[in-house]
Amino acid sequence: MITIIAGTNRPNSNARVISDIYADLLRQRGETCQILDLINLPVDFTSTALYDNCGKSEGFNALNDLINNSDKFVFIVPEYNGSYPGVLKAFIDGLSFPNSLKNKKAALVGISTGTQGGAIALSHLTDVLHYIGTHVLAAKPRLMFIHKNLNEGKLTNALYLTLLQEQIETFVSF
Amino acid sequence: MITIIAGTNRPNSNARVISDIYADLLRQRGETCQILDLINLPVDFTSTALYDNCGKSEGFNALNDLINNSDKFVFIVPEYNGSYPGVLKAFIDGLSFPNSLKNKKAALVGISTGTQGGAIALSHLTDVLHYIGTHVLAAKPRLMFIHKNLNEGKLTNALYLTLLQEQIETFVSF
Amino acid sequence: MITIIAGTNRPNSNARVISDIYADLLRQRGETCQILDLINLPVDFTSTALYDNCGKSEGFNALNDLINNSDKFVFIVPEYNGSYPGVLKAFIDGLSFPNSLKNKKAALVGISTGTQGGAIALSHLTDVLHYIGTHVLAAKPRLMFIHKNLNEGKLTNALYLTLLQEQIETFVSF
Amino acid sequence: MITIIAGTNRPNSNARVISDIYADLLRQRGETCQILDLINLPVDFTSTALYDNCGKSEGFNALNDLINNSDKFVFIVPEYNGSYPGVLKAFIDGLSFPNSLKNKKAALVGISTGTQGGAIALSHLTDVLHYIGTHVLAAKPRLMFIHKNLNEGKLTNALYLTLLQEQIETFVSF
Repeated sequence: MITIIAGTNRPNSNARVISDIYADLLRQRGETCQILDLINLPVDFTSTALYDNCGKSEGFNALNDLINNSDKFVFIVPEYNGSYPGVLKAFIDGLSFPNSLKNKKAALVGISTGTQGGAIALSHLTDVLHYIGTHVLAAKPRLMFIHKNLNEGKLTNALYLTLLQEQIETFVSF
Repeated sequence: MITIIAGTNRPNSNARVISDIYADLLRQRGETCQILDLINLPVDFTSTALYDNCGKSEGFNALNDLINNSDKFVFIVPEYNGSYPGVLKAFIDGLSFPNSLKNKKAALVGISTGTQGGAIALSHLTDVLHYIGTHVLAAKPRLMFIHKNLNEGKLTNALYLTLLQEQIETFVSF
Repeated sequence: MITIIAGTNRPNSNARVISDIYADLLRQRGETCQILDLINLPVDFTSTALYDNCGKSEGFNALNDLINNSDKFVFIVPEYNGSYPGVLKAFIDGLSFPNSLKNKKAALVGISTGTQGGAIALSHLTDVLHYIGTHVLAAKPRLMFIHKNLNEGKLTNALYLTLLQEQIETFVSF
Repeated sequence: MITIIAGTNRPNSNARVISDIYADLLRQRGETCQILDLINLPVDFTSTALYDNCGKSEGFNALNDLINNSDKFVFIVPEYNGSYPGVLKAFIDGLSFPNSLKNKKAALVGISTGTQGGAIALSHLTDVLHYIGTHVLAAKPRLMFIHKNLNEGKLTNALYLTLLQEQIETFVSF
């Protein structure tokens, strides 16, 4: 089971659109997958699910269970202020340790409306994942100008589609 | 006016203790300062104050005003999972742009119970601040094993105190 | 005196071309500047000028003197393998400390033939400069696809020229 | 065949001492390994083996062959000026691509005389290795105050030895 994490709680995010596209590509490849969309985080999770409250929020625990039941993760990471969304990191800060992500594997995809495609965001997230013991696939596609390359839920950029498919090929055997 | 940001919403945080110590040092040096403690973030700010809701949360706006009315910032940054707290980044993600932090100046302090002292956390935060146009002081003290070096609200490590005082000296003229 | 560092020892580098353009822009602005081109590093500097040999290579010392006599630096940084050139870091590793760069100021420009424009290279170099006590200007233009935006020693991309001019405006008063 | 890279050309480096210790640990575990010590780089390699001279230096090619003939690498990385040694990156800049390191695997160890243990150095090197397609093991031991924990070629710190052994266990099956 591969879990795709739509890495923002922004409503109607491009991260979710890319997550759906990624799920289709995985299923075409014969892989089983599910989407964990951070839009489903409890609205007060930063006060009820972190630190000493770790494990106490049912809504948060439901998402945490999706993590616990998977060994491979795809993070779809929008670039906010030159890094990953704070909400994505706050979600990670609330996960039950050490079982949640240690010795598991992750693939990262960056998306941005600007020119970076999340280069630094993916570097930061790699640091975090390595710190908590998750191995990260070297290939990290960066989909810049994402708003110009999506139309009605489809990627219109053939190169971007190829990059995702190549990532999947290496991730399946990672 | 220098604003010290206690960079976590964790109750009774060491970040707040260090913020209070830092405020004392600044006042002894004749500087005016205030503390912005992320414990005061609205419990639901990630759902009510970010993205399209930017500016709509009164509780968040009150904190944002503290930012808008200052030109210099000291970030006290605990290390969570090898980086800055997600909540700190989510707070930045909700600030009104471009006025809040652009062309302003920041000093960073890292604290951790482990051995890093937030080295990578401070590197990540520097990337974010540079991205949004805030200049960052080169000197970034890292206070590792912080729990062993605090007692009843006082720093018991003379070196740590010296590092903070030296940072203040350079920050005042930065 | 502002020293522009062409950040590679590659012959006929685009970094040198950009350095010359940057020097012209500074002079038009009324600033005095000089170029330190790493092409002038002694061919054996990694064996004769680093570590215990620090200070023993006349050819290296001549470049080090250019650093010592300046308070402001512009680093033109090509992206090699997703970071700064190893030679640029080896040059820094050989500088006399702590006088060379501590408490001085730097502006960074990234160039690449690929899509990143040196985003991560500039992040890495910022970490290094902060470590040795050099303050870094927040604005760091990234000139991607540089080979398509240069013609006979001139920048043909108006946006890139504007980015450099805006950087100069803020750097002069930094 | 695992290749251990002593990541500096500094004579009599601690990086080499740790490389020898690491080789012993690998052999005790039944693994075959060799050491690539950057002390063996040609003294003029930055002028004769990089860029358009890639492949033209026999001395450099001999080291490059050690890379080409291995699938797994251990980088022993001293911290110089808050990052990896420039010489290590210059070595990577000269490798023949894309065969040398793409789709291969690496484990990283940081060493420093200071408090960081190369935290940021290892982060930077991870960025570079990921860029060129090398997968990096999540666990990256950081051996700070290395000079106080080595005696006559032996690690006197039991924790450090354990960290290296645990890294080897996960790396062997990575």
